[in-house]
Amino acid sequence: MNDARTVYLDHAATTPMVPAAVEAMTAHLADIGNASSLHASGRRARRVVEESRETIAQALGCRPGEVVFTSGGTEGDNLAVKGLFWSRHAADPGRRRVLATSIEHHAVLDPLHWLAEHEDAELELLAVDELGRVDLVALQATIERDPASVALISVMWANNEVGTLQPIAEVVALASAHGIPVHADAVQAIGAVPVDFAASGVDAMTVSGHKVGGPLGVGALVVRRDIELTALVHGGGQERDVRSGTLDVPAVAGFAAAVEIAVKEQADHAARLTALRERLVDGIRREVPDAVLNGDPVVRLPGNVHFSFPGCEGDSLLMLLDARGIECSTGSACSAGVPQPSHVLLAMGRDDESARSSLRFSLGHTSTEADVDAVLAALPACVERARAARA
Amino acid sequence: MNDARTVYLDHAATTPMVPAAVEAMTAHLADIGNASSLHASGRRARRVVEESRETIAQALGCRPGEVVFTSGGTEGDNLAVKGLFWSRHAADPGRRRVLATSIEHHAVLDPLHWLAEHEDAELELLAVDELGRVDLVALQATIERDPASVALISVMWANNEVGTLQPIAEVVALASAHGIPVHADAVQAIGAVPVDFAASGVDAMTVSGHKVGGPLGVGALVVRRDIELTALVHGGGQERDVRSGTLDVPAVAGFAAAVEIAVKEQADHAARLTALRERLVDGIRREVPDAVLNGDPVVRLPGNVHFSFPGCEGDSLLMLLDARGIECSTGSACSAGVPQPSHVLLAMGRDDESARSSLRFSLGHTSTEADVDAVLAALPACVERARAARA
Repeated sequence: MNDARTVYLDHAATTPMVPAAVEAMTAHLADIGNASSLHASGRRARRVVEESRETIAQALGCRPGEVVFTSGGTEGDNLAVKGLFWSRHAADPGRRRVLATSIEHHAVLDPLHWLAEHEDAELELLAVDELGRVDLVALQATIERDPASVALISVMWANNEVGTLQPIAEVVALASAHGIPVHADAVQAIGAVPVDFAASGVDAMTVSGHKVGGPLGVGALVVRRDIELTALVHGGGQERDVRSGTLDVPAVAGFAAAVEIAVKEQADHAARLTALRERLVDGIRREVPDAVLNGDPVVRLPGNVHFSFPGCEGDSLLMLLDARGIECSTGSACSAGVPQPSHVLLAMGRDDESARSSLRFSLGHTSTEADVDAVLAALPACVERARAARA
Repeated sequence: MNDARTVYLDHAATTPMVPAAVEAMTAHLADIGNASSLHASGRRARRVVEESRETIAQALGCRPGEVVFTSGGTEGDNLAVKGLFWSRHAADPGRRRVLATSIEHHAVLDPLHWLAEHEDAELELLAVDELGRVDLVALQATIERDPASVALISVMWANNEVGTLQPIAEVVALASAHGIPVHADAVQAIGAVPVDFAASGVDAMTVSGHKVGGPLGVGALVVRRDIELTALVHGGGQERDVRSGTLDVPAVAGFAAAVEIAVKEQADHAARLTALRERLVDGIRREVPDAVLNGDPVVRLPGNVHFSFPGCEGDSLLMLLDARGIECSTGSACSAGVPQPSHVLLAMGRDDESARSSLRFSLGHTSTEADVDAVLAALPACVERARAARA
């Protein structure tokens, strides 16, 4: 239940379910039967799962057998990086190095740190430039220092905070020259930019339901069949023994409906959001002339607007806007409540103060020009108040 | 969508959602806002989660802060046994031994085998008697051989296949004398028998949504605040950093509604199911005189009926009954499709042939006398056919 006057500009944290996904999900809430059961109800549940898997595969450019359902993006990222590390390291203990950009989501960074502390991994974080783009020269040098010791590379398709798109094709080219598997967290990319798993050449790709208009609590790791992947969650052997647990049939059905629509409408959606984004970026620059746009101004997610507002605390600005019914974020929702400067902005060369002064407005399928205009109407006074609060 | 004539007797695999859970869940499907976001929509989502947590805590006899939401029973079991092992082993590398009954669910056994193969654990499986009850004398001897080396003990509250309840209080007494944490998989017990976390003395307890009339894809690990637990899924730091990932607000709300009802109605429900169970047990003994009831005849789940039918293949019998609209299981749905004799029955001393000849009928909230009578009407002919098929 949300106030009709709420201007919701936090779609990167979670976007409302599209009606088709709600419908697909609710159609199965009253179903009977575990998709692993042999009887008719079980087989019927299984059919829903397999049809959903085919829909998703079709949309993402992979084979149905490459879709491993998970509980969401965080689990998918954990399964990818831990599972790849464990398998590659077991096959050759010399493969200890894990390479990732320094601006990965915490769902990638935190498991990597854990692997380094707990499981004999050696983590090397790759620098990004001031626009948040991974340094390919550094990546190449890092790989070539000792290619045989690299267990995996993880590079996100699009950054969740500043929206910069990463050069996935170039990363894959550098890695595949040495047979190193690449994982891409594509949680923010699906439905926003074209994503074709097979064409991309990545070996594993994380997708989340609730970022594409599907339900919470479901996602997938798309992973090539010839890639060995150690399970994170062991048990009944579902999902080709890589992810045990009773399949969540209604959520899977809702997820498939959302992915299908998100991919089908991607180009139109991107064009519409890009126009709204530019309206918001231009307006903020006009209303708050010293505001600094973060991330790549062009090669970025269509719905991402991320600014630093010198002299403001991002948290204060967020609450001031919230009081006026405008909802946005200081960065990743997952780090909300933890008052630390963004690791993404720090990696892009910003100082603590600049990193703390930032806000993300993320547009989505419900966003309108009126939403953008509401932000522009409210922002100048909020910035003034936030500056005064710090003075 | 299920046929009106279906007799569903596989509630232990998954039980249909109760209307209150469907309602609580669908009420939030259209909500906006990530429960980790700071704005009003985020705080509203967070409130739903925290109210659900309180409802569940109240029902299960624990504190709200002891409820860690997961994606379901399998993840809960994995988090419990791996998380406890990693933490206890990190604190003292001498703690290598992990004790569990030989009849645990695969969601406990398989992670334990993985810990033994991959993470320096030494797994010791405890014998059970012919009724499927853990051998407490053996447990005591196993502990006392070297108490300081025991990292954890995992004993299921009630067995999912044969329904036997385990002597949790006695297990806790033996373990706590040496400060060893006990995990109990209570997935089948909640709503079926009285379960009070605090009173039980267990340190961690796994609960699942879809086994109690709640949604699939959600569950909880209830874990004492003073227990160190290494995360299985790292990331944004949700659920006191033990289980990262965006909280699934609608599923959590549906789960809470289901747990509340299941616990409130447990005594009435158990009385009703026990009567149905006895009607089914008596009837099977009358119709198929050489059928053998498995598990403890008295100290068992109210809705569990598990028989061996000498001379039959359980799988054939299952399909013959299914053709007549009667849905049951040969054991754990999670092992379905894998033609192996039940590890539970083998541990109870049965031979392969006897183990393969078994069927589980599990009753639940939609079960009626008519369902029981339908089984009894169909069973003799199916048993005859199944025997003929093997002759």
